[in-house]
Amino acid sequence: MRGVKAMNGAESLLRTLLGGGIDTCFANPGTSEMQFVAALDRVPGMRPVLCLFEGVASGAADGYSRMTGRPAATLLHCGPGLGYAVTNLHNAKRGASSIVNIVGDHATYHRPLDPPLASDIEGLARPFSHWVRTATNAETLGADAAAAVECARTAPGQIATLIAPSDTAWDDGGIVAPVSTPRPPDRVTIRDADAIATLLRRSEPTVLLLTGAALREPGLSDAKRIADACGCTLLAEFTNGRFQRGRGHASVARMPWGSDQARAVLADMRHLVLVGARKPVAFFAHPGKPRQLCPELSDVHVLARPDQDVPEALHQLAEALKAKPSAGSDDLPRPEVPQGPITPDSVARLLAALMPEQAIIVDESVSFGRGLFSATVGAPPHDWLHQTGGAIGAGLPLATGAAIGAPGRRVIALQADGSAMYTPQALWTQARECLDVTTVILANRKYAVLTGQLAAVGAQPGPRASNMIDIGNPDMNFVKLAEMMGVEAARAESLSRLAELLSYSCSRPGPFLIELII
Amino acid sequence: MRGVKAMNGAESLLRTLLGGGIDTCFANPGTSEMQFVAALDRVPGMRPVLCLFEGVASGAADGYSRMTGRPAATLLHCGPGLGYAVTNLHNAKRGASSIVNIVGDHATYHRPLDPPLASDIEGLARPFSHWVRTATNAETLGADAAAAVECARTAPGQIATLIAPSDTAWDDGGIVAPVSTPRPPDRVTIRDADAIATLLRRSEPTVLLLTGAALREPGLSDAKRIADACGCTLLAEFTNGRFQRGRGHASVARMPWGSDQARAVLADMRHLVLVGARKPVAFFAHPGKPRQLCPELSDVHVLARPDQDVPEALHQLAEALKAKPSAGSDDLPRPEVPQGPITPDSVARLLAALMPEQAIIVDESVSFGRGLFSATVGAPPHDWLHQTGGAIGAGLPLATGAAIGAPGRRVIALQADGSAMYTPQALWTQARECLDVTTVILANRKYAVLTGQLAAVGAQPGPRASNMIDIGNPDMNFVKLAEMMGVEAARAESLSRLAELLSYSCSRPGPFLIELII
Repeated sequence: MRGVKAMNGAESLLRTLLGGGIDTCFANPGTSEMQFVAALDRVPGMRPVLCLFEGVASGAADGYSRMTGRPAATLLHCGPGLGYAVTNLHNAKRGASSIVNIVGDHATYHRPLDPPLASDIEGLARPFSHWVRTATNAETLGADAAAAVECARTAPGQIATLIAPSDTAWDDGGIVAPVSTPRPPDRVTIRDADAIATLLRRSEPTVLLLTGAALREPGLSDAKRIADACGCTLLAEFTNGRFQRGRGHASVARMPWGSDQARAVLADMRHLVLVGARKPVAFFAHPGKPRQLCPELSDVHVLARPDQDVPEALHQLAEALKAKPSAGSDDLPRPEVPQGPITPDSVARLLAALMPEQAIIVDESVSFGRGLFSATVGAPPHDWLHQTGGAIGAGLPLATGAAIGAPGRRVIALQADGSAMYTPQALWTQARECLDVTTVILANRKYAVLTGQLAAVGAQPGPRASNMIDIGNPDMNFVKLAEMMGVEAARAESLSRLAELLSYSCSRPGPFLIELII
Repeated sequence: MRGVKAMNGAESLLRTLLGGGIDTCFANPGTSEMQFVAALDRVPGMRPVLCLFEGVASGAADGYSRMTGRPAATLLHCGPGLGYAVTNLHNAKRGASSIVNIVGDHATYHRPLDPPLASDIEGLARPFSHWVRTATNAETLGADAAAAVECARTAPGQIATLIAPSDTAWDDGGIVAPVSTPRPPDRVTIRDADAIATLLRRSEPTVLLLTGAALREPGLSDAKRIADACGCTLLAEFTNGRFQRGRGHASVARMPWGSDQARAVLADMRHLVLVGARKPVAFFAHPGKPRQLCPELSDVHVLARPDQDVPEALHQLAEALKAKPSAGSDDLPRPEVPQGPITPDSVARLLAALMPEQAIIVDESVSFGRGLFSATVGAPPHDWLHQTGGAIGAGLPLATGAAIGAPGRRVIALQADGSAMYTPQALWTQARECLDVTTVILANRKYAVLTGQLAAVGAQPGPRASNMIDIGNPDMNFVKLAEMMGVEAARAESLSRLAELLSYSCSRPGPFLIELII
C-alpha cells in the first residue's frame, strides 16, 4: 500500500501524471484546485503555465501536443472554467491532439447541496471528450488519472477529462498508479496495402488524401515515393494538425476551403485513397450547392484509418509498389523579399524569404490567409499548424503551446484580427514565459470571411447586416493590446516595414507582435 | 397559411421574437447565421449589438434582462460559439435571468456528414438551459421561437436555447407564430402567508432571507414593513441579480461570502424564512468546516419559492401582520468624499459620495470588493448587480447589457483585474454603442481570493504555488487595454485622482475606464 497516508490525492494525481509522461500543465486554477497547485511545490517535474483564460489553456495544450506528440494537462476551475475551454477542445479533438483535462469540483459531499458554482460538468465535458470520469475518493484518484493518460495517449490522440472533487484532492491516502505504455496503433495488413497497390498500378486518376502523421516524416517521404512511382496526386486535408513543409520535404497541395474550388480540384479524380484522412465534405452547405466534394463516379478507398499506423501503411504501400527512394529534391527556389503592395501572395513570399529554419507557422489567417499556404513552398523546412475544427480563437493559444513544446524554434502566428479577439490573453502567457512567438495580426478590420458567406447563402446585406461583419468601428489597436500584456509590438503598413519587423522579432528571444494593416 | 412562400425561416424567427417582446440581440454571428443577419435589414425593430466574443454576448444578455425584466436574444455560431457563451449562461441561470439563445448549425441534411465545425450542440446547451430544441424546418421555426420565448419568460426567468440549422433559416415557408402572454407567477396562498405571520408574531429570532424581486420595490418596502412590525432581520443572499439600494430604500445586509462569517451572522437565528431565496449553504466546502450555514436547531420556512409571486407574498404577509406603512426613512447620511489611503472602505465611501442618482453598480470586485457593499448604503438610490453564479468574467459584459437595457443611467462596473481578463472584449462593444459605463479596474495584480483559499484547504504554498496566483508578472496595463478598443481611460493611484476621474466619467456620455491601483 505504497503511499497510503503519506500523500494526499492531489499529490498522487500529480505523480501519476508525471509517471505517464505529462510534465506540462496549462492552468487557470481556482479554489477547488488549490491542492494541486500546492502539490507543485512538493513534487518536482511539472511545469505549470498560468493562463488568464481557460480557452488559452486548452488551445495551448493542443499546440503543445501537436509539437511533442505527447499530451499536456490542463487545470481548470469547475464547470465554468471548463466552459471557457471547450471551444478549443473542439479544435483539439478534431485535430486528434492528446490532452488530459483536470477539472476541479465541489467536494463530493458538498455538491448535492447545489452551491452556486455547481453545474453538470460531465454533461458539459462529454461532447468535447473521448473519456469523462468523476473521481470519487483520494485512494482511486491516481488510478483515475492513469486511465485518463492512457486514454489521451490512444492513437491518434484523444481528449480525456477527469473531474476531481476537492476532497479527493485534499484527503490523505493517495496512491500513485502506474500508467500503461501506450498500445501501438494497429498496423494495416499487407493484404490491404497490396489492394491499394493494385489499384494504383492501374494508373487511373487517383488522389491520395493525407492528414495527421502522413504529412510528417517519414510518412511524407514515402507518400512522395508512391506518387513518383504511380503518378497519383498527393493532397492534404483542408486543415491539418502539423504539416512538415519547405525545402527537403515533398510539396503537397491542400484541399481548398470553398466547395466549388474543392470540387474543381477533384473533378477528374477516379479514385480517392484515404491516408489517415476522412472522406471530404463541404465545410458548410449552401443553398443549391452539392455538399459532397468527390465526383459522383469516383470510388473511395481506405489505406489507413486515423487510428491506424499511418506512416507504416505508407511505407508498406511504397514497398509493395517497389517504389524507388525519392529522387532528389524538387524544391522551388527560396523567394526574394518582395516589394510592392501588401497582398496574400506578397506576404507569403516575404514569409518564405525571411522565416528562420524550422520555424513553426500557426495559421489562423482565415480569409486573407487562403493564399499564404501554397506560396510558402519554397521556404526553409518548417511546420505548419492549421486551426483544425473551424472554431476561431485557436491561433494565439496554439502558438503559445507550440512554443513551449518546441523550445528553440521561432513560432510565427498568422492571425486574423477578428479571431485574435477571442483569446488575446495568450499574449500575456507568451510574455510571462518569454516564448519565441512572433504574432502577425492581419488587420482588415472586418469579419471578411462572412462577406462571401452572406452571398453564398443568397442573402442581400443591407446596412445593418453589413454593420454586423464590420469590426472597424471602433478600430482596434493591436500594438496597445500587446503592450498591455507586456509584449513588444509595432505596426506595419508596408512590406518593407513588415520585413524589418519580422527579421527583428526573429533575431531576439521572446514574443513580438506585428499589426499588419491589410 | 399566412406568410407561406412570403418569407424565409430566418425572417419568421425574427418577427416571432419581436412579437414576443424581444427587440435586442447580442450577436457574434458566423456563416450559419447569415440569414438572420440579412433579415435584420428587412424586418425593422430588432437592435443587433455586435460582440467580439460570445461570453460578452451571453453576459450582456444577462445584464439586459436584469434591468428590463425582459429577455434579450443572443445569436451564436454553432457549438463552438455557444461554447464560449456557456460560462456566463451559468451565471444567468443561477441569477434567474431570461435569455433566448439562437444558435446556428449546419443544414439538417449536411450535419450527418459530420463536417469539421459540427458538434453535439444540444449536449452542450443542456447543462446551461431550461429548454433546448433543434429546429427541423422553416415552417415550424417560428413556432419553435415562440416556445423559446415563452420558456424564457417563465417566472422567475429561464434560459431557452433554440438551435437553428441553416436550411431552416434560408428555406422559404416561414410562418410567424404568436407568443403567449407569460403566465403570471403562482400566488402564495393566504394560508401560507398566515402561517408565516403566526411564526413572526412569536418574536423568536428570525431572519427573512431575500433575493430576486424581494430586493426591489415594492417588495423591499413591504419587507421593511414586516421587519419594523415584528423585529425580524432582513438579509439578502450573497449574490443577487438586481438589488435596489440607497436613499429611500430599506437597508438590507448581505450574507457574507465566507462560511465562518455567514455562520456568525446566523448564529442566534431560530427561524429562517425563505423569500424567493434558497436555503444558504457554504460557497465552497473546506476540510473540517461545516457546509451548512444555519444553526442546527433552527427551522427553515418558505414564504415564497423563486418561481412564485414574491412581492405579492411579502405584501400579503405585511397585510396579515397588519404592519404599518414604513415609518419614514432610516437613511444614513451621504458620505463626504474621503481622503487617505485606498482601502475598500474609502473606495466605498467615495463611490457613495460621487455616484449619480440611479446609478447601476455592477459588482465583480471579488476580494477587494467584500467591503464595498455595506459602506455604500448612504448613497443616492441605485441598483446593485452581483455576479450570481460564481463564474468570473461576468462583470464587463453585465455592465454592457445593463447600459443597453437602462439608457440614461450611468453604469459603474467595479471590476477585479484578474476577472476582467476573461471578457475584456466587452469594452469594444461599449465604445461601439457609446454606452454610459465607467469601469473601475481594481488592480492588485494577483488572484487575491486564492491566497485565502490556499490556506482554507490547508495548503502550504511554496514559490510555484504562489506563482500560480500572481498575475503581476508581467504587470498588465488596463489603460492600454481600454484604449486598444476605443475606450478613454486613465490610471488612479490616489483617492483624489479616483474622485476626479469618476466625476469626469459621469459628466460625459460614453464609456470610460479607470485603472485603480490598490
